[in-house]
Amino acid sequence: MRSTFEEQLNDLHLRFSEMGMMASEAIMKSVKAYINHDKALAKEVIEKDVYINRREMDLEKDSFEMIALQQPVTSDLRMIVTVLKASSDLERMGDHAVSIAQETIRVKGKTRIPEIEKLISEMGDMSTSIVEDSLEAYLKKDGAMAEEVAKRDIEIDGKSKMINELCIKDMQKTADNVLSGSSYMLVASYLERVGDYATNICEWVVYLNSGHVIELNRKHMADED
Amino acid sequence: MRSTFEEQLNDLHLRFSEMGMMASEAIMKSVKAYINHDKALAKEVIEKDVYINRREMDLEKDSFEMIALQQPVTSDLRMIVTVLKASSDLERMGDHAVSIAQETIRVKGKTRIPEIEKLISEMGDMSTSIVEDSLEAYLKKDGAMAEEVAKRDIEIDGKSKMINELCIKDMQKTADNVLSGSSYMLVASYLERVGDYATNICEWVVYLNSGHVIELNRKHMADED
Repeated sequence: MRSTFEEQLNDLHLRFSEMGMMASEAIMKSVKAYINHDKALAKEVIEKDVYINRREMDLEKDSFEMIALQQPVTSDLRMIVTVLKASSDLERMGDHAVSIAQETIRVKGKTRIPEIEKLISEMGDMSTSIVEDSLEAYLKKDGAMAEEVAKRDIEIDGKSKMINELCIKDMQKTADNVLSGSSYMLVASYLERVGDYATNICEWVVYLNSGHVIELNRKHMADED
Repeated sequence: MRSTFEEQLNDLHLRFSEMGMMASEAIMKSVKAYINHDKALAKEVIEKDVYINRREMDLEKDSFEMIALQQPVTSDLRMIVTVLKASSDLERMGDHAVSIAQETIRVKGKTRIPEIEKLISEMGDMSTSIVEDSLEAYLKKDGAMAEEVAKRDIEIDGKSKMINELCIKDMQKTADNVLSGSSYMLVASYLERVGDYATNICEWVVYLNSGHVIELNRKHMADED
């Protein structure tokens, strides 16, 4: 019986990582679709989100059954609770990829600002890679790596700030750029949130190792800028 | 022993609802601060977010211990899993209140567009009330009420769309309104997300009653508009 439980746990672990890769792929594709005005790719992202949602439901169901039937304790239970909680973060990454894809479809025929699109594209790469690396830290159960990865969220926030400032300047100067600029700002806010979710995954990796719930990169300071 | 567990479960239930009220208050205050350019209130929202985060951690810890020590099954376990999962939704509502409060501090001395501020204020009321009512449905364990409450998220999305369209028109017409307009759009996107989280709470109420994970208001359709 015990070995079956180990197998189930391993399976849960892998299917969670797989869900993470689905979310990371969705983000990468949504930014690509957005930058290339590729509506077909945007629709693909939107349609495939149902698989990410379904995977979260499956993980919930399996976690629930494993807890009810096997009554795990300490580190095994901690792993199941982590999957239960962190799968919400992955599901939300998928939702944000959908929002970016919807922006691709919504804003048609808009003027393009190549300088800002380049930054959005870079921010997309940063977001995709922080998600991938947080998942690698999860798979390796590497708390130190998770803490390092989480630090990169600060750079993502910096990029977002830079995009916002450029957009505002550009929209003030050229009325024709308002539609694009406001769309870029929204997309940057979605990608910023993806970085926050990746940070959450990193926090879960630390919890998995230590049993302590911690908060990496406390950013909610009431500083005036 | 059994009665102690019942007490613990009841306590978990109440402290989850309390967390919900903290989140709902944070949203209400953040919108009030934003509309009134009240930086002191905005700072209060940002500083108090730590209590919402701490409450989530406490609920996690207690849920974990209750599962490990009492090994609940069926409906008791389902309730604990609901608290574990849905507390993430409440925590994120708090994060969005913080984002709105940060906007209050960030955008200073901007031009105001009273027509749009009125809509933002209405959207704030709608978001606060959908959160409160989703919590009432949770406390009453009323699945039918939860389904009704979730429907109101569609009106919140409609309001968001209206705000976005007005902002874009206004920014195109008047360059001086770009700073305000882009800020209004961001705040509307935060409030829209709060409505999504309230919908999640409603879904958890349905799950609590039925054991089935469902998705209310499927909005991720790839429709062109």
